[in-house]
Amino acid sequence: MTQIPERMRALVLKEDGFSGRFEGPAIDDAHRWLELAELPVPQPGPGQVLLRVRRATVNPSDLHFIKGEYGQPRRKGTPAGFEGCGDVVAAGPGAEGLLGRRVAFVATPDGSGAWADYALTAASAAIPLADAVSDADGAALIVNPLTAMAMIDLAAEGSPAVVLTAAGSQLGKLMIALARDRDLAPIAVIRRAEQAPALEALGAAEVLVTTAPDFRERAAAAMRAHKPRVLLDAVADDVSAALFEAMPAHARWVVYGKLDPTPPRVTAMGQLIFMGKRIEGFWLSRWLAETPRERQAEVVAEVQRRFADGRWHTDVAAELPLAEALDRLPEALRAGGKVQILP
Amino acid sequence: MTQIPERMRALVLKEDGFSGRFEGPAIDDAHRWLELAELPVPQPGPGQVLLRVRRATVNPSDLHFIKGEYGQPRRKGTPAGFEGCGDVVAAGPGAEGLLGRRVAFVATPDGSGAWADYALTAASAAIPLADAVSDADGAALIVNPLTAMAMIDLAAEGSPAVVLTAAGSQLGKLMIALARDRDLAPIAVIRRAEQAPALEALGAAEVLVTTAPDFRERAAAAMRAHKPRVLLDAVADDVSAALFEAMPAHARWVVYGKLDPTPPRVTAMGQLIFMGKRIEGFWLSRWLAETPRERQAEVVAEVQRRFADGRWHTDVAAELPLAEALDRLPEALRAGGKVQILP
Repeated sequence: MTQIPERMRALVLKEDGFSGRFEGPAIDDAHRWLELAELPVPQPGPGQVLLRVRRATVNPSDLHFIKGEYGQPRRKGTPAGFEGCGDVVAAGPGAEGLLGRRVAFVATPDGSGAWADYALTAASAAIPLADAVSDADGAALIVNPLTAMAMIDLAAEGSPAVVLTAAGSQLGKLMIALARDRDLAPIAVIRRAEQAPALEALGAAEVLVTTAPDFRERAAAAMRAHKPRVLLDAVADDVSAALFEAMPAHARWVVYGKLDPTPPRVTAMGQLIFMGKRIEGFWLSRWLAETPRERQAEVVAEVQRRFADGRWHTDVAAELPLAEALDRLPEALRAGGKVQILP
Repeated sequence: MTQIPERMRALVLKEDGFSGRFEGPAIDDAHRWLELAELPVPQPGPGQVLLRVRRATVNPSDLHFIKGEYGQPRRKGTPAGFEGCGDVVAAGPGAEGLLGRRVAFVATPDGSGAWADYALTAASAAIPLADAVSDADGAALIVNPLTAMAMIDLAAEGSPAVVLTAAGSQLGKLMIALARDRDLAPIAVIRRAEQAPALEALGAAEVLVTTAPDFRERAAAAMRAHKPRVLLDAVADDVSAALFEAMPAHARWVVYGKLDPTPPRVTAMGQLIFMGKRIEGFWLSRWLAETPRERQAEVVAEVQRRFADGRWHTDVAAELPLAEALDRLPEALRAGGKVQILP
């Protein structure tokens, strides 16, 4: 067993609760919300494990959270970071079975965040990793992959196709590959045309570029050709509303992110009535609370198989040492691809 | 049996299909969409009945329909009018049991509209009326009352309260009385303060006046006090969006009408994700298609009991002779209360 020090470095929150604003996940200056601090290494309680962090991932949900616009309140002075991978170096009563294992994990609200040398979480939120899964994939094994699996399950209910906004994101790419494997035609919606070839190579049935002059016509034609029933939407702007309006009867607009901070004008209210459409949200935390453990275990096993055999892959755009993360984060996020933090 | 003439008067549609616009149910000039015409009296086919119309009702859905902005296409030259009451004067094979009965009815797409001397419909869309139910109530027994029953059923699923926009409408009043009888606190939202006392007398737990300067604060306080889970909304504007945003977790915004033609800005997209809220529609036609016949029969029996014993009542604002209806309709609609057409 490794020697556990008494103190650790962590990126800790500078504010409490919610901000009361909604600006979206863009970050100009990470120092505004976080600072590098030294803290005591936390001790695992019953059912908890302590991890020496190998890598932590920066997801949009982390950025919303540190800015105070996520579904749970901040706690000033506590480490940020929802997701990572690491080695279990201590375990509380009932969690000893994980000691010494390399795991993927998400930080639970009663634990301590992943952007730190050490992190504390519930044993149930730590997944032992197969050897074939790299640290880079292990550090991004839960938030995006489980969301992808759950949302594509949802889209597959009677749909011949699925529409994905922000389709060039890591999550978008996971979903395109998964949808294609399930014989569900993925319609990828992106802003920048240069992403199109990569998404077509992954299996996108159509790529719609929102900035193209013929976007509306191409979107309408794609909807007629593929008849998608579900829009998996990370943007939630007027373009999303227009896509929803172009979709056939019984379409579901499933919002899971809000990259654009302005509220969309919903042009399709009459379609809610006459065409049985609806608008709803997806949050992984709710899925985890509502999905039986056995189904979650199946999904996790499938996720590991997909990373282990190379069907899925995490595109890491930048690896930031913990001490440099605050200075380098805004620029690293602009590159496209995942940013990971290495203690 | 009455002598049935060969020809009849009817208000017939001047245009086909959909208008491609959405202006809402306001009508400045009924002659723009309808004309008084003389037509052959239709003949009932298998499973159909012919009614001599006693009264027909003007609902918002009729106004949307004649303007080409409803969920089904217009057919030029055919009589308008979805709902009325009348006497069954002829019946096709399989429908003879209704001969001679006074019935409430809705016009089916293969039949002929209610704004006419005679109307044709499916026997399954005609409900024999109890003697205690007046013609005025009988002519408005289906569209609003079944909608009220179905939507209050929906609101009662785990809700302590329900929010109703356009609460001063005939449908709003039916729902306030029904919600109160079911121990569901009705929160009535109206534009004109003078409607408030009548709604309080009917059983509204709160009346919110959208034009009042303290509307937002009062709405927020009502939501905190009553924790409504369902918003039954006939307006679908920015005020509706604000009400939805003020509602607690798991709130459902159920749109059943669109009195305001502008698309609302949905400020609560993040709440769809984190608070499990959703936005959907209600259409009686879909409810009829999806609800088992036995449940529909129970609901119809309950509706008749409520009109027969006076718990429900149709406020008739104007009775227009068929020949004068087009000239007088716009003004009659401005009065508040139901407009009925009498051949």
